[in-house]
Amino acid sequence: MELFEEQGFEKTSAVQIAQRARVTTRTFFRYFPDKEEVLLADADADAVKETLVQHLLQKPDVTDTLQAVTRTLADFDWEKLGPRQILRQRDAMIASDPRLLERELIKQQQLTDALRDVLCRRGTAPDIAELAANTGSQVFRTAYRKWLEDNNDGDLTTITENVMSLLAAIMARGPVPATAARLP
Amino acid sequence: MELFEEQGFEKTSAVQIAQRARVTTRTFFRYFPDKEEVLLADADADAVKETLVQHLLQKPDVTDTLQAVTRTLADFDWEKLGPRQILRQRDAMIASDPRLLERELIKQQQLTDALRDVLCRRGTAPDIAELAANTGSQVFRTAYRKWLEDNNDGDLTTITENVMSLLAAIMARGPVPATAARLP
Repeated sequence: MELFEEQGFEKTSAVQIAQRARVTTRTFFRYFPDKEEVLLADADADAVKETLVQHLLQKPDVTDTLQAVTRTLADFDWEKLGPRQILRQRDAMIASDPRLLERELIKQQQLTDALRDVLCRRGTAPDIAELAANTGSQVFRTAYRKWLEDNNDGDLTTITENVMSLLAAIMARGPVPATAARLP
Repeated sequence: MELFEEQGFEKTSAVQIAQRARVTTRTFFRYFPDKEEVLLADADADAVKETLVQHLLQKPDVTDTLQAVTRTLADFDWEKLGPRQILRQRDAMIASDPRLLERELIKQQQLTDALRDVLCRRGTAPDIAELAANTGSQVFRTAYRKWLEDNNDGDLTTITENVMSLLAAIMARGPVPATAARLP
């Protein structure tokens, strides 16, 4: 992605991409049929963000902020971006390369910030919007990785709800005040 | 930080750093007294991570995983890294520059992963360790930003507990099953 920006898509070869990502050319082609596949992931990121933003904007009710964020993320048809097997390989390739991981983390943060902004536009207090967007995204990402690993065609919405329940269970172990606290 | 790695610390000037970060030299010196200040942040990251890992390793009890993570992060003396005013400026500079932000996000993820690994070593199930480390880090980061903004010398541990309470309140709005769910 970085190479495409630096020298343009046409002038960038799969061999160069593989070198930049510090993997062998053979490894690269094992993961991606061609360089277009890698570019697609980046070009799609903005489109995915816009779709998710619109989805959250049009939700009838966002008063349950955390649920609104996780459902928005979980209900998206991620397999539109490619079969789960390819998504899994892409995820593994990104995780194994610091440069790709940096890019991925900033894209995730931009998506989270966009969802936070939607919650604010829909009347959520800024503190709550930030916490719901950040925590919801984290819950979803845990579910998404579970879903990628899952070989039984598990449903992403169900897995996300399970992760939410797990978080509730973890939180219940600590002292949780009955009254809603507000940030100072 | 990247420049230091590429060409060594001695050969890198503040002007070059400012150019790479796409800010004017004047802006750079408004934020940092000299280039050593920027390097310090990066060199310190590993030391901070190691201190936090040791703290979590030596905690008498980590069965309340989320609390163990947030307390470990909140109890650290962040002002050891510099007065709050400098930390705030550093945070603003990082947030305003995509390259610095990428670096910061990957460092945060590495810290989160290290804390997750400690929880696993101390007997926490991998799913719970990952969720507790990720969510706990997110809760702490929200608190840390609040703390940076706070001009009244608010206590980071208290702010973090307030964010935890806020998260509990947000979660209570959704359907939270009474029984602890496990990830598939």
